[in-house]
Amino acid sequence: MKQQLQIIGFENSGAGNEIFYSFNPAKQINNNYSFLKATTGEINRAVEKAATAFQVYRKKSGAAKAIFLTAIANGILNSGDELVTVCCDETGLPSARIEGERMRTVNQLKMFAALLQEGSWVDARIDTALPDRTPLPKPDLRFMHIPLGPVVIFGASNFPLAFSVAGGDTASALAAGCPVVLKAHPAHPATSAIIGKIIQTAAQHTNVPDGVFSLLFDSGIEVGLQLVKHPMIKAVGFTGSYNAGKALYDAAVSRPEPIPVYAEMGSTNPVFILPQVMEERGDEIAAAYSAAVTLGVGQFCTNPGILIYQNKEDHFKQSLQSAFQKTTGGVMLTPNILNAYNNGLQKQLAVSGVEQLAGSSSQTTTPGNTAVPVLLTTGNSTFNSNALLSEEVFGPSSMVVAVASKKEMLEIAANLSGHLTATVHGTEEELIAYKELLDILEQKAGRVIVNGFPTGVEVCSAMVHGGPFPSTTDSKTTSVGTAAIYRFTRPVCYQNMPQQLLPAELKNENSLHISRLINGERTNNGIV
Amino acid sequence: MKQQLQIIGFENSGAGNEIFYSFNPAKQINNNYSFLKATTGEINRAVEKAATAFQVYRKKSGAAKAIFLTAIANGILNSGDELVTVCCDETGLPSARIEGERMRTVNQLKMFAALLQEGSWVDARIDTALPDRTPLPKPDLRFMHIPLGPVVIFGASNFPLAFSVAGGDTASALAAGCPVVLKAHPAHPATSAIIGKIIQTAAQHTNVPDGVFSLLFDSGIEVGLQLVKHPMIKAVGFTGSYNAGKALYDAAVSRPEPIPVYAEMGSTNPVFILPQVMEERGDEIAAAYSAAVTLGVGQFCTNPGILIYQNKEDHFKQSLQSAFQKTTGGVMLTPNILNAYNNGLQKQLAVSGVEQLAGSSSQTTTPGNTAVPVLLTTGNSTFNSNALLSEEVFGPSSMVVAVASKKEMLEIAANLSGHLTATVHGTEEELIAYKELLDILEQKAGRVIVNGFPTGVEVCSAMVHGGPFPSTTDSKTTSVGTAAIYRFTRPVCYQNMPQQLLPAELKNENSLHISRLINGERTNNGIV
Repeated sequence: MKQQLQIIGFENSGAGNEIFYSFNPAKQINNNYSFLKATTGEINRAVEKAATAFQVYRKKSGAAKAIFLTAIANGILNSGDELVTVCCDETGLPSARIEGERMRTVNQLKMFAALLQEGSWVDARIDTALPDRTPLPKPDLRFMHIPLGPVVIFGASNFPLAFSVAGGDTASALAAGCPVVLKAHPAHPATSAIIGKIIQTAAQHTNVPDGVFSLLFDSGIEVGLQLVKHPMIKAVGFTGSYNAGKALYDAAVSRPEPIPVYAEMGSTNPVFILPQVMEERGDEIAAAYSAAVTLGVGQFCTNPGILIYQNKEDHFKQSLQSAFQKTTGGVMLTPNILNAYNNGLQKQLAVSGVEQLAGSSSQTTTPGNTAVPVLLTTGNSTFNSNALLSEEVFGPSSMVVAVASKKEMLEIAANLSGHLTATVHGTEEELIAYKELLDILEQKAGRVIVNGFPTGVEVCSAMVHGGPFPSTTDSKTTSVGTAAIYRFTRPVCYQNMPQQLLPAELKNENSLHISRLINGERTNNGIV
Repeated sequence: MKQQLQIIGFENSGAGNEIFYSFNPAKQINNNYSFLKATTGEINRAVEKAATAFQVYRKKSGAAKAIFLTAIANGILNSGDELVTVCCDETGLPSARIEGERMRTVNQLKMFAALLQEGSWVDARIDTALPDRTPLPKPDLRFMHIPLGPVVIFGASNFPLAFSVAGGDTASALAAGCPVVLKAHPAHPATSAIIGKIIQTAAQHTNVPDGVFSLLFDSGIEVGLQLVKHPMIKAVGFTGSYNAGKALYDAAVSRPEPIPVYAEMGSTNPVFILPQVMEERGDEIAAAYSAAVTLGVGQFCTNPGILIYQNKEDHFKQSLQSAFQKTTGGVMLTPNILNAYNNGLQKQLAVSGVEQLAGSSSQTTTPGNTAVPVLLTTGNSTFNSNALLSEEVFGPSSMVVAVASKKEMLEIAANLSGHLTATVHGTEEELIAYKELLDILEQKAGRVIVNGFPTGVEVCSAMVHGGPFPSTTDSKTTSVGTAAIYRFTRPVCYQNMPQQLLPAELKNENSLHISRLINGERTNNGIV
């Protein structure tokens, strides 16, 4: 049994005495790693180190921070088979998925490194002085984004690499200039420890201060709550369940000094199928939908959980049924997640008017902790009168709702709460005829998808992985893509600051050659 | 007595029966205008109309919204002497100030109109598709800012025009595409009614929908709280006291669907005087500081309330004393504000170690409701051990703190809470020597001022009128300048949306010629 320690900046620490173990959900046994719950002393030391490190790290150039992020990326890229083996053992996910997620994690870090190297993300704005203006002279004003301070990031269960220790939240916070205290997810602590050591090593080799990164363990919620309430913590990043995310939000807004919580709490990601496209490509859509619902055992924030179609023909329902019958289930991340999945399904099935349309033929006996994909169906009136039926059941299931008319479809759309995504399948002609549906959906979701599925979340400048409450606690942000960096920054304005005291981004000469807004005009030129 | 009605979109309504009056603080009598507290029915109708109007208004082009804002600006510009007379009667402010504030209000509206006409503010980002990418094709993704929905804005007591009915919050919300339900400040309801009618008329003449703007009255807090809790309201803009702002924040975050509150709650705006500049220009700084403290009877969010200087000579204290003695007080906005000012001063004076350094020689007898400027002073240890001494006393007073060393100055800076502004006076040489002070202050304030005073808040692209808690409830935003628009928007991403269904800002051809980020490159070109 290998005992893993807390990572507190450049030190490792094992002061606690409450032990827990890495667990193998497929084999239903403990893995060969044990962990200690972080103590209050360790929590405080990690946060205090982060606050001290912040004073140095916040002044690092974009180029210097890019070197640090690139070193983390390279460390992960070169982490070899051990990472994959350990991560598969802890999560039940297949090795190909872990390999793919490793590349995604590496590419996210490199994307932020490139953003820092380019430098324009700081949104530099300069209004030059007009000393002779009447009645009052205009001062020289210069605006840019600066980091908020130490932040706490929670590892997510469902992306053990891409949304955990060195995932998108950590990458964007470190890119912004914020030290990170990371609360490891207890469903993959050994994976977290491997990645944590890679970040620790990268920090030591790239001249960033002791305390820029710490990693703390806890099998429960106490350490996380203590971190969120610590007065030196200035923001929180989280991906997980509604209940956990909302609890962190409530704790953060009731602090003496409230802080922002970026909690991405998932959603049911409704998919609407219009009649013409259903007639033309119904079989294809049914197969693709079934695949999207069951991909990764349905353990994605963007897993499509509701399908609404206009009931012109029974053939589509049959296509869905037979396509779904061919899907396979798989090992879920944790026994708790499987229990919640089975309970959620049972609750929905218990509603009068809800039927099982299809179930996968996959076996539940081996390996352990396996979920069986299930497709439920109900009618428009049952769906509208039971809020439970539009709630997320995390896992490979979906609710299929047939409606009789465009009007009923629009009503369902108008009644939706906030979601990460909303999808419409239609021919170009009928998408125009259903423009009203698209208009409603863009008010309900962070991303509106046409003739595709929401499960792939591209990492790029134009991505929004966010959405109105309850899909997140802050609809104004994204947790994927370059815009994620602004969760951890705020603007500051310097008035009449001497040139040599200004940050490089705001000096007249623009030695970084970044894009700036100067007296309302966008330019990469300096001020002469 | 003229009875003023609620403005609910294009209707006027007087359903209530609780009456209150416009009050003249200088004469201590009621003005010739009465108002009814808005009823729950009127509140609901205003919000429901706003929600209906939103579906039309959100689709208006930037050019169309600019026409509306310009019509409001022109209406205010041409509102003649009545506005000035009524506003002076209600606020006790001199007519020159009201004339100046009217121009500021007009210019703010025109600034947002220009921002909309230019159009690049939507932060359009396009990542084009790579259909042949392996292992998975890349979809077409297009990102831009869209409005949040109906918002409630609270008029501020201290800017009856520039931060009230058609002030910066309203201008930025309407520019963003959000209908506004405005809660008039009871200290200037007749002024609010005049401006409300101008907006109502502008809406009727520029083809914006009924409900884009409503104006409700209440002498207390109930109407405002009901508005903040209304499920169709999606954000809140507020300028005022900490207690009122924090109460709105607490109400908003405990809604079933939490919403953002942009409460600008003022601050003490510390000013640091370094020793060399004090020797060189101490008399001049003392006079300018005294003028800044007493400008507009000290009723500015950016009024400097703490002066910290390094005690090399007694001469500076004497300069301050004699300069301050020459200042004049004036009529405060309301009796409550004057009471709070006098009580705040008494509380600070009651602290052992605090002395009155100077009082203005202005008379308190005529006109009524007049505040007398007061300068208090204390030493470093008394200041550090009494949190009360760094709290804002809204009005023409300031606390002067002498410190013995740079170290003590840095300690005071490090102990500051969040402020809207922080100011340093120093020679270029000593500013470099005190770089550490500037580094601390940019973490404590939204705007850092060198060799100036915080009271002038320039309306431009580079302004930040905001700051860390408790100066505001959201340090990531500004309530002055073009960036204020983002308080009322969120990003949305369209995936594989057909060209003809995309907003103009995101279509390939870029007919609006706006600046966009296309595959990571900034350009005003279209996509061919």
